[in-house]
Amino acid sequence: MSSYQDRLTALREQLKRDRLDGFVVPLTDEHMSEYVGAYAQRLAWLTGFQGSAGSAVVLPEQAAIFTDGRYTLQVREQVDGRNWEFVSVPATSIASWLGAHAAAGARVGYDPWLHTRSWVEEARKALAERGAELVAVDTNPVDAVWPDRPQPSDAKLAVQDDARAGQSSAEKRAVIADWLAERKADAVVLSALDSIAWTLNVRGQDVAHTPVALAYAIIDADGTADLFVAPEKIGDDVLQHLGNAVRVRDRAAFPAALGGYAGKRVAADPERAVAAIFGRLEAGGATILSLRDPVVLAKAMKNPAEIAGHRAASVRDGAALARFLKWVEAEAPKGGLTELSCVAKLQEFREATGVLRDTSFDTISATGGHGASPHYHSTPESNAPLEPGQLYLVDSGGQYADGTTDVTRVLPIGTPTEEMRDRFTRVLKGHIGLATAVFPPGTNGGQLDSFARRPLWEAGLDFAHGTGHGVGAYLAVHEGPQRIAKPNYPGGGPSEPLRPGMIISNEPGYYKAGEYGIRIENLILVEERIIPGGDEPMLGFETLTFCPIERSLIVADLLTAAERDWLDAYHAKVLEILSPEMDLEEVAWLKEKCAPIL
Amino acid sequence: MSSYQDRLTALREQLKRDRLDGFVVPLTDEHMSEYVGAYAQRLAWLTGFQGSAGSAVVLPEQAAIFTDGRYTLQVREQVDGRNWEFVSVPATSIASWLGAHAAAGARVGYDPWLHTRSWVEEARKALAERGAELVAVDTNPVDAVWPDRPQPSDAKLAVQDDARAGQSSAEKRAVIADWLAERKADAVVLSALDSIAWTLNVRGQDVAHTPVALAYAIIDADGTADLFVAPEKIGDDVLQHLGNAVRVRDRAAFPAALGGYAGKRVAADPERAVAAIFGRLEAGGATILSLRDPVVLAKAMKNPAEIAGHRAASVRDGAALARFLKWVEAEAPKGGLTELSCVAKLQEFREATGVLRDTSFDTISATGGHGASPHYHSTPESNAPLEPGQLYLVDSGGQYADGTTDVTRVLPIGTPTEEMRDRFTRVLKGHIGLATAVFPPGTNGGQLDSFARRPLWEAGLDFAHGTGHGVGAYLAVHEGPQRIAKPNYPGGGPSEPLRPGMIISNEPGYYKAGEYGIRIENLILVEERIIPGGDEPMLGFETLTFCPIERSLIVADLLTAAERDWLDAYHAKVLEILSPEMDLEEVAWLKEKCAPIL
Repeated sequence: MSSYQDRLTALREQLKRDRLDGFVVPLTDEHMSEYVGAYAQRLAWLTGFQGSAGSAVVLPEQAAIFTDGRYTLQVREQVDGRNWEFVSVPATSIASWLGAHAAAGARVGYDPWLHTRSWVEEARKALAERGAELVAVDTNPVDAVWPDRPQPSDAKLAVQDDARAGQSSAEKRAVIADWLAERKADAVVLSALDSIAWTLNVRGQDVAHTPVALAYAIIDADGTADLFVAPEKIGDDVLQHLGNAVRVRDRAAFPAALGGYAGKRVAADPERAVAAIFGRLEAGGATILSLRDPVVLAKAMKNPAEIAGHRAASVRDGAALARFLKWVEAEAPKGGLTELSCVAKLQEFREATGVLRDTSFDTISATGGHGASPHYHSTPESNAPLEPGQLYLVDSGGQYADGTTDVTRVLPIGTPTEEMRDRFTRVLKGHIGLATAVFPPGTNGGQLDSFARRPLWEAGLDFAHGTGHGVGAYLAVHEGPQRIAKPNYPGGGPSEPLRPGMIISNEPGYYKAGEYGIRIENLILVEERIIPGGDEPMLGFETLTFCPIERSLIVADLLTAAERDWLDAYHAKVLEILSPEMDLEEVAWLKEKCAPIL
Repeated sequence: MSSYQDRLTALREQLKRDRLDGFVVPLTDEHMSEYVGAYAQRLAWLTGFQGSAGSAVVLPEQAAIFTDGRYTLQVREQVDGRNWEFVSVPATSIASWLGAHAAAGARVGYDPWLHTRSWVEEARKALAERGAELVAVDTNPVDAVWPDRPQPSDAKLAVQDDARAGQSSAEKRAVIADWLAERKADAVVLSALDSIAWTLNVRGQDVAHTPVALAYAIIDADGTADLFVAPEKIGDDVLQHLGNAVRVRDRAAFPAALGGYAGKRVAADPERAVAAIFGRLEAGGATILSLRDPVVLAKAMKNPAEIAGHRAASVRDGAALARFLKWVEAEAPKGGLTELSCVAKLQEFREATGVLRDTSFDTISATGGHGASPHYHSTPESNAPLEPGQLYLVDSGGQYADGTTDVTRVLPIGTPTEEMRDRFTRVLKGHIGLATAVFPPGTNGGQLDSFARRPLWEAGLDFAHGTGHGVGAYLAVHEGPQRIAKPNYPGGGPSEPLRPGMIISNEPGYYKAGEYGIRIENLILVEERIIPGGDEPMLGFETLTFCPIERSLIVADLLTAAERDWLDAYHAKVLEILSPEMDLEEVAWLKEKCAPIL
């Protein structure tokens, strides 16, 4: 295996051959995916960086890697500072860095299949001010020097049956066709992998933790569709499921197909479709409507079948997690447990359900100071034993055919400090404050976020991440468009109104650097609320996740009467719902964990 | 006095003479003021509309008046529907209405001293799509046909002494000069009247309720300034106060002066400076920096002297209001009180302080169903008697040389219903929820607004106005840039971070159409909070307004222990602070009103 130094040198030589004076390497794929397949891990191959978000820029004499606040420490551990300059986004954007560092007259390359149009415009402008040029490449120069680059997955697609999906693909496409008709549009390009999977009621295995397949789709105003996918990935079952109204075509035919819409009005999503898609449509003479992918909102608002599926998955997953917590509680005092052995054991409990398809993300199993990094991932190098006096934090979820789960619990190993209990109780108060919120239609997550933070704010504390993200129905564990977070959270999620059927996480936390991390996470469902005597119908949340919240970490005196009532009612429901899944000994343990707070 | 029909006809004839096919009449002045002098009340003269916000468009065959939701009813009462079409903004913008109604080829006039550049751009674009043209006029055609149009006020300016201002004008201008230097700018145009008054430590009498003078100012990078103001308005005291570094010039010389910045970098505020200012600067060869007026934030963050002044004004004003409430309580049962007699009596109590300069706005004195219109103003035609079973709402404030106040209280006339008490208590809970909020620096009013609404939301209720606006220091009672409101509130105020020294109103309400209105309003001061054991310094509010909140309207059982504590502590402080201002009988009454809640 070549060194990272050699790889950087090889890329620079390739750039010379391509007559480029620089190149931009983002961590994404042709679908602007959050998690990407191994074939698209160009940033990791080039730099060694293992985080989930970042970019690199290579110039003849300089190279820089761009990461956000989550990865400030990690990038310095994983990437060689002698070859790479570390740059923090959003403080410094790639465009502004390029504008400050590219040489006058330089030709800086980018792969138009890996960037949005707005990114291209911003970078082009910054370079132009420098007298330099941004140049789209036909083939990615990283791929040219990456000898053992993995092939895109050839895993087969699977049918997501209509009973689970709650709506047939034909019905979904008819709704999209109506949407197109309202806008006098002829077609819409779907490039987000989960939008395609949802619309066609199929699932895939091409991306870790997210059951989607590498594909593109174009939905026409008559409700028919073109699905562009590697032919070897389509079996007879899927072909039959898709039917005649879905034309299966080779994924390689997609770029050329975009050229076939001369004189037509074609919708594409500027945040989700890459610059190349817009470029091909334009070059082909299409009139482009820059509109949000119509599937985004439809997919976020779960239908009754999807909600019922999620409830079933929640019970199953909650029981597995409860068993795991019972096991940690029993084993930890004996010593010998580590973060990674816990990951394996939790996986075992989830697999014992017999229907686990995948975890929804890499389990966060963090003890002591590791818990203070909200996105910590244990590796063989960092793996730590669970030791007395620590808090152990586990944030995990399962992908089941009927639902995607995401839940965080914290256990004390031995006796927690009073400070830990105070902080845990404040996080719980914030969690309850959000879980019990009632609000008028049109309210967005930015307006509710403060409910989850207020008890921390009152103690001079806060947490530096969002409070809630959308969750898919056997799809992505991070799903837009809504988000519960401070209004300046990147991407506009906090300004998206919450709508009935949306599933969102409720996960306030508190982190003390080097000492411990606390997070309490349940999933919540937006539902309508008719309040007797009220002037207007309101919205509220139903909590969907069932697993005990550790009572020994709660300072009961800090809770209001209403908060105690919520907690006791929640635990009563946990007991009622999980008991049928458990044996006698487990139920006895669960009763203790779910007893009313004193 | 000519009829409104005649006025409209006269304007149309003038437009013909001016070779225009239409004209836009906004309700504002050359300073984009919220309240304007009589000389600028063109909309009221033309249409009869008496509201505080609106616009009209006159075309050869059609005429439309544009108002927002506050004035839907009022505009129909005051304006003749046979001559005027009623249009609601923001549902329909003036630009989009023009785009739909102007004839192809039409020349629609506008006065560039009464519109922002962005308004002009939007209207120009909408007309262009119609094949019509937007034309700047040199003189306003309304003025040409308004024979008895009032002259702009010739009232003299007055010095606001440095002790009250807390900072000399020279010091303030030095800070602006630093701001210019950082931006490599040569000068900044100040056109907002309160910015000019604050910067030069002067006050005026040219606008109702707001102690400002009609003027423009340009501050140079060396800290000197040009003040453009009618010469007869400047006495020797002001001239001496301004000193040599402020060049006093005739207001009429301002447009030409803008042409004298060839090759210079000049800052102007696109939201506060009218299109004509940008046009003149551009025509004169200046490079324009579109930046927010640097005074806006400085003025919003009150200094210790301004805060001390506000405290003194609050005590004086709170005592006057308390005397008024005592009087209403005693007199209302006897019958004979009306909304207008109450306004007069409250004015009497405020004038008895001996130092009242003006009210901060027209007092809202609303009984019964009138209270359900948040911006109701009693007129001789609408004036209603206070009758048993009603709630009486009074929203008022005083302009004193040391501070501007704004306060709302509600009294029951006779026995209130249980519903009224429930609603009042929920409004109070929201008021307390905001008053007691603690939050990290960087938090904006959009993040705190929900605290004031939650107790109403929980009952299926809400209120359709913002929760808080900034308040000036013997300046405008509505002062930007901050605002506590839902994030979609027009103008961006909810996204402005709250900063120490800002004074803001805390005024949640509840309105039941045709029956009653409730609002509880105090002013609150943003202050730093160091919380022992906290990770970071936070911000919180100190309540500045002192006047009893009617205990008979409070359902004690609906309050949490913490809310009762807040209310009792607030009333204890009201008693402590107002008692020294009152006689024995008044103190006895105040003691009752401030007794702990049971």
